[in-house]
Amino acid sequence: MGSRQMMQKLNKALSRYGNFHPSPLSLKKLLDFGRSKNACEKKSFAFLRQELPVRLANIMKEINLLPDTLLKMPSVELVQSWYIQSLTEILHFENKSPNDSVIIDNFTETLYNIRKRHSNVVETMAQGVIELRDTHGIDHQADSNIQYFLDRFYMSRISIRMLIHQHVLLFSPTQETHPRHVGSIDPNCDVESVVLDAYENAKFLCDQYYLASPELDLVSHNGMKKASPITVVYVPSHLYHMLFELFKNAMRAIVEYHGTAALDYPKVKCQVSLGKEDLTIKISDKGGGIPKSAIDVLFNYMYSTAPQPPKSGSTTAPLAGYGYGLPLSRLYAKYFQGDLQLVSQEGYGTDALIWLKALSSEANELLPVFNTTSSRHYGTNIPTSDWSSPYTPRGSQNSVRTFLTYRI
Amino acid sequence: MGSRQMMQKLNKALSRYGNFHPSPLSLKKLLDFGRSKNACEKKSFAFLRQELPVRLANIMKEINLLPDTLLKMPSVELVQSWYIQSLTEILHFENKSPNDSVIIDNFTETLYNIRKRHSNVVETMAQGVIELRDTHGIDHQADSNIQYFLDRFYMSRISIRMLIHQHVLLFSPTQETHPRHVGSIDPNCDVESVVLDAYENAKFLCDQYYLASPELDLVSHNGMKKASPITVVYVPSHLYHMLFELFKNAMRAIVEYHGTAALDYPKVKCQVSLGKEDLTIKISDKGGGIPKSAIDVLFNYMYSTAPQPPKSGSTTAPLAGYGYGLPLSRLYAKYFQGDLQLVSQEGYGTDALIWLKALSSEANELLPVFNTTSSRHYGTNIPTSDWSSPYTPRGSQNSVRTFLTYRI
Repeated sequence: MGSRQMMQKLNKALSRYGNFHPSPLSLKKLLDFGRSKNACEKKSFAFLRQELPVRLANIMKEINLLPDTLLKMPSVELVQSWYIQSLTEILHFENKSPNDSVIIDNFTETLYNIRKRHSNVVETMAQGVIELRDTHGIDHQADSNIQYFLDRFYMSRISIRMLIHQHVLLFSPTQETHPRHVGSIDPNCDVESVVLDAYENAKFLCDQYYLASPELDLVSHNGMKKASPITVVYVPSHLYHMLFELFKNAMRAIVEYHGTAALDYPKVKCQVSLGKEDLTIKISDKGGGIPKSAIDVLFNYMYSTAPQPPKSGSTTAPLAGYGYGLPLSRLYAKYFQGDLQLVSQEGYGTDALIWLKALSSEANELLPVFNTTSSRHYGTNIPTSDWSSPYTPRGSQNSVRTFLTYRI
Repeated sequence: MGSRQMMQKLNKALSRYGNFHPSPLSLKKLLDFGRSKNACEKKSFAFLRQELPVRLANIMKEINLLPDTLLKMPSVELVQSWYIQSLTEILHFENKSPNDSVIIDNFTETLYNIRKRHSNVVETMAQGVIELRDTHGIDHQADSNIQYFLDRFYMSRISIRMLIHQHVLLFSPTQETHPRHVGSIDPNCDVESVVLDAYENAKFLCDQYYLASPELDLVSHNGMKKASPITVVYVPSHLYHMLFELFKNAMRAIVEYHGTAALDYPKVKCQVSLGKEDLTIKISDKGGGIPKSAIDVLFNYMYSTAPQPPKSGSTTAPLAGYGYGLPLSRLYAKYFQGDLQLVSQEGYGTDALIWLKALSSEANELLPVFNTTSSRHYGTNIPTSDWSSPYTPRGSQNSVRTFLTYRI
């Protein structure tokens, strides 16, 4: 097939699959499927060869609505080429028989390779935004569009990787998983132990960097069954990702606020609570807090230190983590209908909260949908404010400075 | 002048003054003006006879955009008649000389009467919404429009009453004020003492109703000047209004969660913090918390118990307060660029936070502006969601139930 024919086929697929809405799965569905005695590779194959193109096409149509200036940045072109390549590879299985084990094996391997290909998508897309900023500048309108897009783009990526990873872990003989886990899901994820893991690793970085670190005060309140450990059906790696980020921020704030010469530091407090609907984790630091006006900036991709693709041989600066740590952590929380918020008392300290759905049946994937609302978003100007307050640009001098003291 | 001529004059004034944007004042400006040796009644007269019609016209034009069904409810017609009457009375001073002391005195008296006339606007407008719900029902679209409108309408009212009250307190010889206060503003509002007032009065109601009440644990962290009391330029009655509401909610949650037969209750904790930009007050209760999904409902006028106009001889149910307590408290906080948020851990407890601007020069009034953005709002349908999650109507069964346990 010539490249022109290929492009035609691709465009046809984009418009066909892009017209479907993605089908969100709940953690319960993912778990039940993976657990069932006949967790069937064929069924998974049949579902994914349809659902993955739908999710890819939905977000690819949205990429196409980005301003030309951004689309022409080399890094964005690279990301697009990966998406085109991966979609094409999956489309290859469109009419293949699920009863041919060679095909099924091929499919699993293809997914494995796609996941590898897309490893650095976050960093590469971030690089594209930097390229745009350096060459064309980014005004308030572009900032708002890019924030909107990246939240959706990265969420789409989380969901696609989740589905692929689940398939590969369940059906690839070479993959090792925790005996209790079902794919990447822990049906009895012990929240306190993930908290301790994240704390210990953040503490390790903090000690390395500051030669000191705050202790942890961990308390649980099981509102459903007193004195029982709090567990949840969840993807431990997602939970760890969020907690590690929040612990790093809390520790850094505490040590910086009280000075590296302090003899001891106020503890980082972590409270885990379970109710009927929510599991809540609150990490509180007495690290001096930040003004309310700076909170949004912390979740803005444009004002964050963009993550760099890993360079071989280089060591990452301790406690730096992702520059995108907070916005990405919030996406992980929202992915299964949870949330993540920072609530700060300037002059005192900050509370960071994660909410997860207590019931796996309510933990439905939250997925971006390409429709008139989303496409209209890119074409519309930010409306004039209907309130008197003068518009304060996000990341005003003051806020950016505060941001920089709160996180590297 | 005939009534037709009057309506013509009124419509002309509406369109003329409605084209001006309201001029937000900061607490600093209000204070400086009231403090200046020659706090000049004439100047205030000249400003208000222009600014009050602007604020009235801006919101009256927005009232006119409400659906006809709502506009025709008797209570809404009553509210509108008050606005028309008050605007007409102020317009009467349009071309009057500021050098005639009789006119100036008349003006002050007119303002005093206007403030009295509008005393029950909140309750009457709420009644209008109930009338609409009972006769026509309220769908999601109408709910969203009414929420948007009431936030703006009540905010406009707060601002108009503030300006009138300030003028009346400063220039009416019969008005008594606190010797330290400048009009309704306390230049050295001691936050802890307002907290204690609000706590004591909420405790009184709580004791009356439950024959028990939680104690208070009050701590301050002055991040600007250690160990100094935290003071701020503010309207103490506004701050009291918010704190009283939050204390009532916290106490009720604690007593209900631990049972009226409990021998003792966990304390209500109140932390006051001062930073460079924010003054933050956090009221924390161990009252069992509420699910995250119920938070928005608490601020929704439609799902709150609407306030009733006071009936002579009736006693208000203790701890009931306003049914609109939370949304109105949040408006008071936002009025001078602050905010109010609830952050809850279901199964454990709730934090309620108030942020105020630490600097009076940054505490600018936040005022609704009538412009294309606001008028477009009433004509546009709520767009289809651009995320996959199924639409959950605010105030679903579950949320309303939770709401009812959290507050009367």
